[in-house]
Amino acid sequence: MTAVKVAILGFGTVGEGIFNILKEKRKQLKETLGVDIEVAKILVHNVSKEREGVDASLLTNRFEDILALPQLDVVFEAIVGEEPAYGYLDAAIEKGAHVITANKVMFAKFGQALQEKAKKYGVQVGFEATTAGGVPVIKTMETILRVNDVLHIQGILNGTSNYILTQMRTEGISFETALKNAQDLGYAEADPYNDISGQDAFKKLMILSALAFGKQPNWEDVKVVGISEITLEQVQQADANGQRYRHIAEVSIDENGKIHAEIGPQLVDAAHPLYAIDGVDNAVALDTNYIGKITLVGPGAGMYPTASVMVEDYASMLSKQSVVVPV
Amino acid sequence: MTAVKVAILGFGTVGEGIFNILKEKRKQLKETLGVDIEVAKILVHNVSKEREGVDASLLTNRFEDILALPQLDVVFEAIVGEEPAYGYLDAAIEKGAHVITANKVMFAKFGQALQEKAKKYGVQVGFEATTAGGVPVIKTMETILRVNDVLHIQGILNGTSNYILTQMRTEGISFETALKNAQDLGYAEADPYNDISGQDAFKKLMILSALAFGKQPNWEDVKVVGISEITLEQVQQADANGQRYRHIAEVSIDENGKIHAEIGPQLVDAAHPLYAIDGVDNAVALDTNYIGKITLVGPGAGMYPTASVMVEDYASMLSKQSVVVPV
Repeated sequence: MTAVKVAILGFGTVGEGIFNILKEKRKQLKETLGVDIEVAKILVHNVSKEREGVDASLLTNRFEDILALPQLDVVFEAIVGEEPAYGYLDAAIEKGAHVITANKVMFAKFGQALQEKAKKYGVQVGFEATTAGGVPVIKTMETILRVNDVLHIQGILNGTSNYILTQMRTEGISFETALKNAQDLGYAEADPYNDISGQDAFKKLMILSALAFGKQPNWEDVKVVGISEITLEQVQQADANGQRYRHIAEVSIDENGKIHAEIGPQLVDAAHPLYAIDGVDNAVALDTNYIGKITLVGPGAGMYPTASVMVEDYASMLSKQSVVVPV
Repeated sequence: MTAVKVAILGFGTVGEGIFNILKEKRKQLKETLGVDIEVAKILVHNVSKEREGVDASLLTNRFEDILALPQLDVVFEAIVGEEPAYGYLDAAIEKGAHVITANKVMFAKFGQALQEKAKKYGVQVGFEATTAGGVPVIKTMETILRVNDVLHIQGILNGTSNYILTQMRTEGISFETALKNAQDLGYAEADPYNDISGQDAFKKLMILSALAFGKQPNWEDVKVVGISEITLEQVQQADANGQRYRHIAEVSIDENGKIHAEIGPQLVDAAHPLYAIDGVDNAVALDTNYIGKITLVGPGAGMYPTASVMVEDYASMLSKQSVVVPV
């Protein structure tokens, strides 16, 4: 039985979800993977705040305590923003730890650097949770891309925007009222700029572009439009015509290897794979050369959807290690 | 550079697709996996029939020629029916070869035996192509199940039935006319019994049950109903009510660990994840404990969708072997 220690950076919604799942599934993961996974440290701002079910000795506000852990096998990162997240993960890789992140802002910018560094240090980087929450688009694309070429990606990558557009249509309310409802329900932040401006979807699309095409477009060449200009009248007129507004992030590659990316509202009809995606769900439609079009749909955010795909990232890493196949 | 030899059993639509993809992607797979994959033998009934692009020396009608291949690393099986398919794969595993199958009839019955045997012989079994064609439901479930419990599965698993139900609704034609159209377009066999009776969906559902719950229900306890009793009037009445008939295969597990499975037409409304799935597409909606509901949609059959997920199975096996991570 291998015993490993894991650290969690951040104890917001996602960090707490990771902690709970690792606790609930510890016995099962021991049986299926032959590895005993112990959460050894959690990085938080405020170590004196009491957190239910969490032994206070696990908490630290010093990242050095994380790096000093013996047998540190993986760092789960569930904080926000580029720094200090990138610096933390970079340092963890140097210590020989796998890293798993939900941080799309950091990863859209530093994902390649992290992965190159991880390769050099013989560890892995998990980033399923950066894009489309619980929808397993990263692992699906990794598998598909071993044989298929992905040619074109269209996604609903921001659940808040999709919730607002859905509410405007089904409840006949204005953008402002729908946004207020989303905030009341905790779907939108107090400052909803990143969600409704398209910037959140933009970061996720850049991650998908890097995975599908091996590169991102120049960020400044990408037209990014949010949903705040869409009026109730437009939504109702579209509905009367059998169409719906969807906030779609799309990227494709042309014959010359040039990447084209665009983010903004689109009118789609019932035959479009994203027409039926309502509420806070995310969805990604992939055009591939052999399979054709496949579409993945699921929750775009939330404590357990996001946390569980991060733990799956780790379980996949452990499972690859444990496979012993004589070639 | 490792060099491996592969064999293909059957050279119908799927067998030919595998052959073409392995030829087209040989260089790329060499670069990405470090393995040179050579198709060394193809098992066919008629070795004297000319097949474009295929060197006649590759063809054999004797399975012993396959087993005698030096460096045989994998056998792709694209024939139909329980036997001789099972016997062939069983023998290939004994020779130390991985096996990859698209044969749901064989796999629903002998999948467990094959996997147990493969474990004993240190090889792997790929079966993504047995269920829902190009939709990556098997690998997605394998990943999800490392952490999530799958509680309930609903699928449109037979593209022919879905095409017929869609045509009845959108074209206002009878079951008989829609079936005739499906046959003219090559979607339905000359003998469409397996498709329209639900038997094809039944086999695929049994494979999903085994994967999700570790067991299948007793086959005789499963109610299997096809679509032939649905009238145009029923379809039109449903449409007027905002509902659609879908042929749904579903399976769940109760608190006592008992499996409940059922296959037949269901009326669903617009909020149902399978409502929007039209034409020959397949779709699978999975209810899980942490992620919630995720839905996968894509082509349920066809030369390249099916063949490419089989080659992906093999690429995944090779990629696991080539990962070297110091634990």
